Amino acid sequence: MVNVAILGFGVVGSGVAEVLSTNSEQITRNAAQEISLKYILDVRDFPDSRFKDCLVKDFAVIEKDSSVQIVVETIGGVGVAYDFTKRAILAGKSVVTSNKELVAKHGYELLELARERNVNYLFEASVGGGIPIIRPISQCLAANEISELYGILNGTTNYILTQMIQNGVSFESALREAQRKGYAEANPSADVDGTDACRKICILASLSFGRHVYPESVPTEGITGVTLADVGFAERAGCKIKLLGRAIRLDDGRVACYVAPHLINEANLLANVEGVFNGIVVRGNAIGEVMFYGAGAGKLPTASAVVADIIDASKHSKTRKYLNWMDSSAEAQFDPATIENRWYIRAEAGSEAIKMFDAAEVLSCNGSGNETAFITEKMSKAVLDSKLKGFKVLSAFRVLD
Amino acid sequence: MVNVAILGFGVVGSGVAEVLSTNSEQITRNAAQEISLKYILDVRDFPDSRFKDCLVKDFAVIEKDSSVQIVVETIGGVGVAYDFTKRAILAGKSVVTSNKELVAKHGYELLELARERNVNYLFEASVGGGIPIIRPISQCLAANEISELYGILNGTTNYILTQMIQNGVSFESALREAQRKGYAEANPSADVDGTDACRKICILASLSFGRHVYPESVPTEGITGVTLADVGFAERAGCKIKLLGRAIRLDDGRVACYVAPHLINEANLLANVEGVFNGIVVRGNAIGEVMFYGAGAGKLPTASAVVADIIDASKHSKTRKYLNWMDSSAEAQFDPATIENRWYIRAEAGSEAIKMFDAAEVLSCNGSGNETAFITEKMSKAVLDSKLKGFKVLSAFRVLD
Repeated sequence: MVNVAILGFGVVGSGVAEVLSTNSEQITRNAAQEISLKYILDVRDFPDSRFKDCLVKDFAVIEKDSSVQIVVETIGGVGVAYDFTKRAILAGKSVVTSNKELVAKHGYELLELARERNVNYLFEASVGGGIPIIRPISQCLAANEISELYGILNGTTNYILTQMIQNGVSFESALREAQRKGYAEANPSADVDGTDACRKICILASLSFGRHVYPESVPTEGITGVTLADVGFAERAGCKIKLLGRAIRLDDGRVACYVAPHLINEANLLANVEGVFNGIVVRGNAIGEVMFYGAGAGKLPTASAVVADIIDASKHSKTRKYLNWMDSSAEAQFDPATIENRWYIRAEAGSEAIKMFDAAEVLSCNGSGNETAFITEKMSKAVLDSKLKGFKVLSAFRVLD
Repeated sequence: MVNVAILGFGVVGSGVAEVLSTNSEQITRNAAQEISLKYILDVRDFPDSRFKDCLVKDFAVIEKDSSVQIVVETIGGVGVAYDFTKRAILAGKSVVTSNKELVAKHGYELLELARERNVNYLFEASVGGGIPIIRPISQCLAANEISELYGILNGTTNYILTQMIQNGVSFESALREAQRKGYAEANPSADVDGTDACRKICILASLSFGRHVYPESVPTEGITGVTLADVGFAERAGCKIKLLGRAIRLDDGRVACYVAPHLINEANLLANVEGVFNGIVVRGNAIGEVMFYGAGAGKLPTASAVVADIIDASKHSKTRKYLNWMDSSAEAQFDPATIENRWYIRAEAGSEAIKMFDAAEVLSCNGSGNETAFITEKMSKAVLDSKLKGFKVLSAFRVLD
């Protein structure tokens, strides 16, 4: 039997308790032993919860109980979550988490600590909610040199963009509806500014390329600048606008990583990932392209991934999963601004702006308010900026080729 | 260091040798030790191969060499492949395979034998080529009660259907083009009759539901009955025709499994899986729906999955992966004919056939040759057949709801 403690009885934490209880038969069969929930740590009281007998308020109780082998951290953030994770590892316990902010910020350090203590630090739920992605990359694609990753990593922004595209509602209205439905928080900035997608692409890039990519080094653009005019012009080009996290590895090993809205051709499977769903594409030198699709958030999907990690940790109580990467270094990075793409441009300019390019695909010229929209040939951001110097650019998004 | 022997130097076997060599650095890092190719078994000579020093013709050499820990079976079929697999396991070696026919037919027996000998029998490459699916189901979705699986499991038939849908070419022409491009074999029956998809859904169902599903118990319909008329009527209904393998588990634990062409709404992601690609959907009670997409066949994608299993087997040289299921039993099955769906019908009949249904969606009535096409309300195959008794039915395909 393996004893588990859950830290934080919020949405994900309570989902983990629920899945452990509801699917206990299945879980016992797959773990080949019983997984028992011993503690739930939360500062709040839950007198009506069926798990109330497990509730404790002092982390030291869990830390000192040597019968607890696995700690599930679903507190979130980088405050007590960081402290408790380190203390749990130092106490010889494996830690399983859905905390993308913590993994993106301190993943290297925590994985090293786990290695020193011969325990596991697993985080399948930190990216893509319940979608299997961490384990497929680290195990199933282990024979590949991965060259690129990109994907729709944030369900909230994808829901907003889908509403704008399918129903023609404004960004503001779509955001309000997302909040009403519980898909967006009262303060939606981590989603709409791209911060959440940034953390996730950092984790995927670190895992795939073997070197920690820190969020502060990743240029991140959210969707607040996407207008209905852009959505309309994109449609005219046979494309949909999607917020992508993207990471590319050069042949020399350097890695570029960024988050930004992209135009994606409608024939691309990723363009058809709608609503709160996520889709993640991985490109490897043997596999070609594979895509993983599913609910990127939500109580039970995320709990499903956490519990899969609990089962895995319970099977590897004496061995370690090979899940490690090196720390980052400045020379291992290259500037995503140098990546060449076609660009979608909307500018307050007449045909003069179009004339700056050799082979622009014109979507609209001298429309209302003197607006002009077009798609350029392939070029870097630097070249694009130099060509458009002096013009009033309203939107400039990459086209995924 | 781990020594590997490859049985069969065909497309997949040579791909495995190539990936082991090309990506050796990556593979060594992920396996945390060197993976060394010691033997390749083949009856043929390959004097120009860079792997010619590894070639042997007698399996006993490999069988008796205790330094070989992992045997890769890429012979195919259920003849010598079956014999060599058993002998390798009995000799205490783990076996990794891409042989779907063997796993579908003898998976239970070989997994039991592997368990007795405390070695691994892994087969990630047997379904979906390089797409991670076996490991995600057995590990990442281990916390879920899986209720249903369905997918496009055969790239050849999906290529043919895509050609029919996109370019309006007949089944026969599309098949010839598939053969010309090397996607279909000279004798294409295992693909177009659905046999290949049947083997794959058997493996997925056995793994997901814990009980061996044998191919001979699975009603299997291929795509030879799909015409351009059907493709056109499907389009009129906003659908595409795709060959699906499908497995459903009832609440009482019984499993139904079948292979047949389906109409899929164009908004469904699976309808956009085109050409030789595969897409597999898994539905679990915690995760909801997830989809796995990628190249379902091909030398390097398949080799990628085989080598991932080699790495995994090398890490589990002293422990066993929990990959087992029970044998089948008649009472664990239920007849897929009882599954209720809407049905697409094309019949040589006027409006009389349509009148047999309460809420038929008419696609064409009294067309050329007195042809009538429509979609019925939800019902079982038995009810459908009773209503259409006496009518000349040309096509009857399920609609995926």
